[in-house]
Amino acid sequence: MRIYGDRNSGNCQKVSITADFLKIPYEWIDIDITKNESRSGAFLRKSPMGQVPVIELEDGRCLAQSNAIIRYLAAGSALLPADPFAQAKIDELLFWEQYSHEPYVATSRYHMVYLGRTKEQREPMRVERGEKALDMMETMIKGRSWFAGEAMSVADIALIAYTRLAHEGGFDMASRPEVRAWIARTEKALGLPPAGKH
Amino acid sequence: MRIYGDRNSGNCQKVSITADFLKIPYEWIDIDITKNESRSGAFLRKSPMGQVPVIELEDGRCLAQSNAIIRYLAAGSALLPADPFAQAKIDELLFWEQYSHEPYVATSRYHMVYLGRTKEQREPMRVERGEKALDMMETMIKGRSWFAGEAMSVADIALIAYTRLAHEGGFDMASRPEVRAWIARTEKALGLPPAGKH
Repeated sequence: MRIYGDRNSGNCQKVSITADFLKIPYEWIDIDITKNESRSGAFLRKSPMGQVPVIELEDGRCLAQSNAIIRYLAAGSALLPADPFAQAKIDELLFWEQYSHEPYVATSRYHMVYLGRTKEQREPMRVERGEKALDMMETMIKGRSWFAGEAMSVADIALIAYTRLAHEGGFDMASRPEVRAWIARTEKALGLPPAGKH
Repeated sequence: MRIYGDRNSGNCQKVSITADFLKIPYEWIDIDITKNESRSGAFLRKSPMGQVPVIELEDGRCLAQSNAIIRYLAAGSALLPADPFAQAKIDELLFWEQYSHEPYVATSRYHMVYLGRTKEQREPMRVERGEKALDMMETMIKGRSWFAGEAMSVADIALIAYTRLAHEGGFDMASRPEVRAWIARTEKALGLPPAGKH
C-alpha cells in the first residue's frame, strides 16, 4: 500500500496512525499541499477530489477521504467492531468529526501553522465553532474511556488527530480535563509520543 | 423506528428517502430547527450533537448524522454492496458530500430558503465552493450511471439530497448536463417527484 499525504496534516496522520497500529506495511509519498501537489494531473488521476490523504492498493485502486480510509483499513480488527449498530455509532462520530470539528479546529490550526497567522488573526467564526466542538467532546467523553463502545476504535483515531494538535490552532484545553485524559490514554494505547501541552 | 427531522432539510430527506425505498416503516417526528428544537433538553438526551436527523430504534437506541443513518439502514440491501472496497468507495463519497458539498450548496440554500436572503446576499466563499462541488460532481459522474459502482447506492442518495435542491440555493445547473441526467435517473429510480428546474 502507498499513502499519499502531508505528514503535518492530521487527516493524513489518521491513516499512518491506523496503519502503524494495525501493522499494515506502507510506503509514504509526500504530497506538499502548499505547493498544490494534490491538484496536479498525476494526483488527480488517483483521486479527482484533489485532497490528501489518498491510499493506493497494490492493484492500483485508490481511496480518498481520511475517515473512509481508516474505516476500510480497520475492517475486521479490534478498531472496528463487527456489530452493525456499533459500527453506525462509530460512523456517527466520523461524520461529526468531519462536519463539526475538523473545519474549525483543523482549519484554525492550518491558518496558524501553514499560513503563519497569529492567534488573533484566526477567523472568529471558526474559533467559536472549534471551541464548541471541543466542549462537545468534553460532554461526550465524560464517564467513558472511549468515544464509541467499550474499546478504542477508529472514532478515537479520527477525533484525536486534530484534538491533540488543537493547541497549535490556539485552543486552550485547560477547561477540558476529560478530553485531556482521553488524549493521554489514546496516545498511550496507540504508542504515540505525546503531541504537546494539553 | 422514529425519524426526528425537518421535512425541508435535505439531510433529513436522505433518511426518509432511504426508508421509503427500502420499505422500512417509521414514524416521523417534526423538529423545527428554526425554533431551536434540536437544542432542547429532550432532544439532546437522544443525541448530544443537537442536529437533525436522528433515528430512534424500537429499543430506544438513537443514531445521528444523516450519512451514518442511511448507511446503517441500507446494510444488507442493494443500496450498500457487501464488498469492503465497494463500501469504502461509497464512504469516500459520503464524507466528500458532508465536507465539500453540503457546507456550501446546502448552506447557501439555507440562507435563501430558511433565512430569506436573496441570491446576492449569499456568502461568496460558500457560493464559490458550492459551484466547485457541483463541477466536481459533473466530472465524477461523466461516463457513469451512478456515483459508486455499477448500481444506485446510498452515495447517490446522499448526493442527490441537496443537489436536486441546488437551484433553491441560487445554483444554476444549466452547465451540468451529466448531473442533471443523473438527478432525473435517480429521482425515477427512487420514485421521487422531480424536485424542480435542473
